[in-house]
Amino acid sequence: MNRFINEKENSVTEAIDGLLAGSGGALRRLDGYPHIKVVYRADRDPSKVALISGGGSGHEPAHAGFVGRGMLTAAICGEVFASPSVEAVLAGILAVTGDAGCLLIVKNYTGDRLNYGLAAERARALGRKVEMVVVDDDIALPDLPQPRGVAGTLFVHKIAGHAAQIGKSLEAVTEIAQGVIAKIASIGMSLDTCTVPGADKEDRIAWGKAELGLGIHGEAGVQQVDFVDAATAMRMVLERLAPHLGEGPTVALLNNLGSTTCLEMSVLANELARSDKKVGIESLIGPASLMTSLDMHGFSVSVLPASDADMQALRSPVEPAAWPGIDALVEPIVERLPDGLSPVKPIPSANPQARALLEDICDLLLESEAELNRLDAKSGDGDAGSTLAGAARSLKGSLDRMPLADLTQLMPALGNELSQTMGGSSGVILAIFFNATGDACSRGLSIERALAEGLERVCEVGGAKLGDRTMIDALQPALEALSGGFALAARAAREGADATARIGRAKAGRAAYVPEENLLGNNDPGAEAVARVFARLAG
Amino acid sequence: MNRFINEKENSVTEAIDGLLAGSGGALRRLDGYPHIKVVYRADRDPSKVALISGGGSGHEPAHAGFVGRGMLTAAICGEVFASPSVEAVLAGILAVTGDAGCLLIVKNYTGDRLNYGLAAERARALGRKVEMVVVDDDIALPDLPQPRGVAGTLFVHKIAGHAAQIGKSLEAVTEIAQGVIAKIASIGMSLDTCTVPGADKEDRIAWGKAELGLGIHGEAGVQQVDFVDAATAMRMVLERLAPHLGEGPTVALLNNLGSTTCLEMSVLANELARSDKKVGIESLIGPASLMTSLDMHGFSVSVLPASDADMQALRSPVEPAAWPGIDALVEPIVERLPDGLSPVKPIPSANPQARALLEDICDLLLESEAELNRLDAKSGDGDAGSTLAGAARSLKGSLDRMPLADLTQLMPALGNELSQTMGGSSGVILAIFFNATGDACSRGLSIERALAEGLERVCEVGGAKLGDRTMIDALQPALEALSGGFALAARAAREGADATARIGRAKAGRAAYVPEENLLGNNDPGAEAVARVFARLAG
Repeated sequence: MNRFINEKENSVTEAIDGLLAGSGGALRRLDGYPHIKVVYRADRDPSKVALISGGGSGHEPAHAGFVGRGMLTAAICGEVFASPSVEAVLAGILAVTGDAGCLLIVKNYTGDRLNYGLAAERARALGRKVEMVVVDDDIALPDLPQPRGVAGTLFVHKIAGHAAQIGKSLEAVTEIAQGVIAKIASIGMSLDTCTVPGADKEDRIAWGKAELGLGIHGEAGVQQVDFVDAATAMRMVLERLAPHLGEGPTVALLNNLGSTTCLEMSVLANELARSDKKVGIESLIGPASLMTSLDMHGFSVSVLPASDADMQALRSPVEPAAWPGIDALVEPIVERLPDGLSPVKPIPSANPQARALLEDICDLLLESEAELNRLDAKSGDGDAGSTLAGAARSLKGSLDRMPLADLTQLMPALGNELSQTMGGSSGVILAIFFNATGDACSRGLSIERALAEGLERVCEVGGAKLGDRTMIDALQPALEALSGGFALAARAAREGADATARIGRAKAGRAAYVPEENLLGNNDPGAEAVARVFARLAG
Repeated sequence: MNRFINEKENSVTEAIDGLLAGSGGALRRLDGYPHIKVVYRADRDPSKVALISGGGSGHEPAHAGFVGRGMLTAAICGEVFASPSVEAVLAGILAVTGDAGCLLIVKNYTGDRLNYGLAAERARALGRKVEMVVVDDDIALPDLPQPRGVAGTLFVHKIAGHAAQIGKSLEAVTEIAQGVIAKIASIGMSLDTCTVPGADKEDRIAWGKAELGLGIHGEAGVQQVDFVDAATAMRMVLERLAPHLGEGPTVALLNNLGSTTCLEMSVLANELARSDKKVGIESLIGPASLMTSLDMHGFSVSVLPASDADMQALRSPVEPAAWPGIDALVEPIVERLPDGLSPVKPIPSANPQARALLEDICDLLLESEAELNRLDAKSGDGDAGSTLAGAARSLKGSLDRMPLADLTQLMPALGNELSQTMGGSSGVILAIFFNATGDACSRGLSIERALAEGLERVCEVGGAKLGDRTMIDALQPALEALSGGFALAARAAREGADATARIGRAKAGRAAYVPEENLLGNNDPGAEAVARVFARLAG
């Protein structure tokens, strides 16, 4: 599979350098690539307990992405899915540990435990105060004596991070971390395996199946289950977690394992929120990518029955942007629709002259159907004439309901009528034209100025202008000439419409995709319709 | 493709409800599902300009994820990749627009322009002050008269959002938004198309190819290019953007188009940071998922030559967690490795008695190679004897360099020697044992107590305890009996080692994966080795 990497051997060091480059100097690293990959805060305070975590890479943003005020002091990064060495861990400890000592937060994998453990011994021999806690939140195998450490580790980073930040002692921070570890539980589900750079993708999960209780290094799940939908998936996960929810308010952490879309993650969040299995889950962290497994198409849920102190620690703001914050789970608040959505029905009024004019124009459009269709066949889908004829037929039938005696009301009424009967872009464009014109009339502008403002709005919204081979090419010159009377306006509209036959490239509307030879010699159907309307208005 | 959704028709409404559920009540929505999908701030302030954006869904976190203090007031969400209707937009405008008016931030797609445009007219007819700006930042086709709106839209949300938040007038906010739009440019690259729920995946991009200048709705790229690596990909993108970088400091926004891993995004950030094409790019937003295209495996870069006012607006904190913040691009800061990484070489000293004892134990381990291998073949990979024999041979050769006369120094020296010559977990475990014992000796503990503390540390770090079928089963009883002399200790070790043959399930180490029948009747090789060592010590 293609990947946005260079030499795979350098992916982790390059990714770390990318993180550092974009940190504005808040993060630094130790020398010693490729063997030693240690990221730490530039502003570390030796009088506070240093929090150090890490492990194999491929779980970004964990762990380097959580280095910053209020969370980790340093992250020791191994290669993809491989523990960092004893020397790398020791280098990290020595680089950031001051008088207050440091706490190592290690996920429960043999390699990590041993390497962090030996580094801790060597750091102690050098006079450093070092404690170590091991996170084992994975409940995939209920009777496994050595449960893995997975995304629940973030609870430890955040809560111990807060304790260290406010200046608690190493003993206190360690105790807090151990208390959190004892309470957390996590389980994940995935629809596909992850792709390790340079390795072939394992084709383990068939279409229609999902793995429940998988590891974050591509370890197979405890079981393959039939995948039905998001609701069933979340229910299965919450059923496994239910025995661990404990008493009192629980926080859930919804983690994207890699390539699950934001849309899916929000659908899953909705299932978590409304599930009857969520007994006691009152707050949510995420959904977010926190502890990923490269590009795994899956998610995990971690839960923590939280004390007041835990909640306070989880709510405190932190520097790392990768931390998504925590919010109460609430019933979505739905407010009623505002008034004014349905156009106000105009009060009908009579005006024989206006009625005759409108009927005349409608008849003209009905007569022009075939010719306008023919022109549209050259530049569009050949239905411009029929669309206008249909609207004209409909408008003729609705004239009794129209406020014919009141121009200010008539204009939006025409617009709303056309937007409902014409459909498509042209109906919306005409609705904008007549609505904007009516709006201008209501502000006391003359009809000529009002029409000009309507056109201006159409140009703005539609993004077309004179010369783009649209109806604007006839309408704009006509309106500009209108103060001189209909005859002048009609002549200008005709000249504008005829000029469109010489425009070989449309710049707006569907004709923009039509080759030149189809356009040259044929008027734009919209412009032609406008020219015909003005000709009729001129009598 | 399997997806974590339910009925695809409900994906967008369910995702919105998931977002609302996890917002703690900060976000609300209008009634009117499925047609009207409007998300807005619960704390909207009618005296400030309302910022409204939106468009098709499938671009999460855009747009609903950016609703919150300092960014959007409301997002109008359409179905996946489809514009919301005029009624939906109008409902959103009416719901959140107060006396200060509202600004519609629309991406340049015909459907969006028309629907937002007509809704604006209708809202104006109802007395609302409404302005609209159209974002057209995509430079994929340099001479396209209607460039698309893509991830650069986030610059507009953020900078106009700040202006609205600090109370600027509608005219001022509109002008600021237009100023930003005039300056931004974006282009994307992808290694695969996106998968629209319910549709088959288009197999358009072959392995080894990438698309440059693609759209965020799966529109094909302007060109297919050979995909080489991350460096080449970023170079191509920056080359296209170079003419738009303009004068002065530029901000780049690095956007994940969907399923690109965090590791890849950081590698790309590194390429952006160190590219010589980045002339003028001084700050970075991301990498982050900002304007995605479902699960597209791609990225986009947007640039803004930023004024001081732009920078101030971009730096101001906001409520939405999806906004990743902005940081200066810097040269990664590399600090030198701390002292103390190499174990201090012990000062050799003579002690004939200790030397004889160690030689004796080494000889014993050399003699036991075959038998320990045989036991290990039952529960592991059959090399335990050889590993210990190799370490013993090596240790015998290094006794001249050992501080034999100083127990406190000898212990860590033994540990470091073994960790270097044994390899694997067992070397690390013995190193931890001897280092911790030495540490305890240095604190003045008796050798018995010090050895007990070493064992305690091994249990902690290794996660094994008595009865788990490891060397601890012999070592712990031996050390507990040691105060009574070597004979008692040897007897306890032997009993412990023999007891391991009756443990059918190992709970730590590699034997945890071995079936019962292989284990029963055979001593654990580590425990057996310990028993033999104590037997020899007892003479």
